[in-house]
Amino acid sequence: MSKLCFGVDLGGTTVKMGLFSTDGKLLDKWERRTRKENHGRYILKDIADSIDSKIKEREIKKEDVVGIGIGVPGPVMADGTVLKCVNLGWGIFSVSNELRKLTGIDNIKVGNDANVAALGEMWQGGGRGFDNIVMVTLGTGVGGGVIIDKKILTGNRGAAGEIGHIFVNDREREKCGCGKRGCLEQYASAKGVVRLANRMLKSSDKKSCLRKYDRLYAKIIFDAAKSGDELANDIIEKFGYYLGVALAQIAQTVDPDAFVIGGGVSRAGNIIIDKMKRHYESHVMFALKDKAFRLAELGNDAGIYGSAKMVL
Amino acid sequence: MSKLCFGVDLGGTTVKMGLFSTDGKLLDKWERRTRKENHGRYILKDIADSIDSKIKEREIKKEDVVGIGIGVPGPVMADGTVLKCVNLGWGIFSVSNELRKLTGIDNIKVGNDANVAALGEMWQGGGRGFDNIVMVTLGTGVGGGVIIDKKILTGNRGAAGEIGHIFVNDREREKCGCGKRGCLEQYASAKGVVRLANRMLKSSDKKSCLRKYDRLYAKIIFDAAKSGDELANDIIEKFGYYLGVALAQIAQTVDPDAFVIGGGVSRAGNIIIDKMKRHYESHVMFALKDKAFRLAELGNDAGIYGSAKMVL
Repeated sequence: MSKLCFGVDLGGTTVKMGLFSTDGKLLDKWERRTRKENHGRYILKDIADSIDSKIKEREIKKEDVVGIGIGVPGPVMADGTVLKCVNLGWGIFSVSNELRKLTGIDNIKVGNDANVAALGEMWQGGGRGFDNIVMVTLGTGVGGGVIIDKKILTGNRGAAGEIGHIFVNDREREKCGCGKRGCLEQYASAKGVVRLANRMLKSSDKKSCLRKYDRLYAKIIFDAAKSGDELANDIIEKFGYYLGVALAQIAQTVDPDAFVIGGGVSRAGNIIIDKMKRHYESHVMFALKDKAFRLAELGNDAGIYGSAKMVL
Repeated sequence: MSKLCFGVDLGGTTVKMGLFSTDGKLLDKWERRTRKENHGRYILKDIADSIDSKIKEREIKKEDVVGIGIGVPGPVMADGTVLKCVNLGWGIFSVSNELRKLTGIDNIKVGNDANVAALGEMWQGGGRGFDNIVMVTLGTGVGGGVIIDKKILTGNRGAAGEIGHIFVNDREREKCGCGKRGCLEQYASAKGVVRLANRMLKSSDKKSCLRKYDRLYAKIIFDAAKSGDELANDIIEKFGYYLGVALAQIAQTVDPDAFVIGGGVSRAGNIIIDKMKRHYESHVMFALKDKAFRLAELGNDAGIYGSAKMVL
């Protein structure tokens, strides 16, 4: 039997798990609820039990399991220590030591969820074929991951790739969740696009099909822009400006082979790259123009792919 | 006899060269003029001759030379190909192959001068003790280098660490040398500080000792700020704002262990860090506050140190 590994994507609501062959094939995937009771003390035990069940179910020999990778929602140090996972109720402790004890499997790698998703996309998703990518995740918030030479860049305090809090607007008066003003997340997250839309709808008297909605969602705005609504187009243009400026700052620092854009908002498709690109180009120096931009391809599976890749 | 290596810092005016022991001691250093005639075709030959003379002078056995590192003023690919060194008249060719042929020494490493200086500062200068630093060079222009895991980050087109062209001001109307508007270099280079000063002197009617000069230099402005001149202080505060914003963008992307600030302007000393820090702090998320900031220590020798380090 060939060698195997597990990739675990630990989220605030569900734990996604995947069984991979060491040549990178996803053989099986399944989910469990994340039990957050008692400061999340059952979470790693549940994961270990679930892996153990899978090993028994498939009659896998333990010596054929080369390792377990796990992505967690919070900052992670290079040694597998989490600093605080607010969503899980976790404090500071070594996830790798704990999971090693619980599973009896030695090779445990821990990463931040956004970084791990970036690694997954580099490996078998939109960033395939590139060794150095920056992934931007446009979801409930805006996150990201920097992959250098096929490895996650963790940073001194696990904050590398915290792209959502790049400063893009010095005229902003409202505060971002992080306490600063003018962060990319305030314009490019699912909420951010809606906020931008509500603001522009208020300050303009242009006709727009968006005015008929009591409550807007990012998808409605992108769809309206695609179908030719002028004000919706202005909104997405503005969104593209902020995203383009942020990616330009990143490129001036790390000059990646490619950018990969993922997260729920990215389901709007190529319009995101189309609208952002012009602004990116006008904010980078000559050598950085014509960069490769890709949409993410693995969707919700990026985390289990990336986690598996960490141990391979 | 212990093993040795050469570090070469090739500039537009002079070539600096250093002989190092493999444990990192600078044993000798010397300079030559950079002969730029005929599209710089004599430059590498001159360097090879100079190294050869030193080998003879010191009766070094060629097998004791472990390699030659060289920093060049322009973008360099990971394989040692230069893309264009405008200052030298060079086009596209492999510096490593050429220097290998000329010297008969196999191990040749080529890097961009700003990146190489960053590596030097990490090794034996202001960044000593850190494995991941970002160096910012405030000189005639603003350059920089990103060191990840003790290695230079080159980037896809040799443009990683091109910090001088990070976008920091969307109200700028004048163009930067790169063709964009609002680049850090327009405010934080030696020229940039003076430009900022002239602009603020014109738009204010505050008294200032700076008004008595026909022509300003960065040093005059920093000195005036240190001695309590209010307008000079405002100018340096503004300089600090732009620098702080740029470093914040970098930190959100790579979260380095430390920033090292070098170049001619940095001779003004700690006032640079003092003025920049508050603005940095207010533009980064919580995890990135209290970053280590250091002044560069190797001055004009950073390049030869970094070049040597590339082959060690």
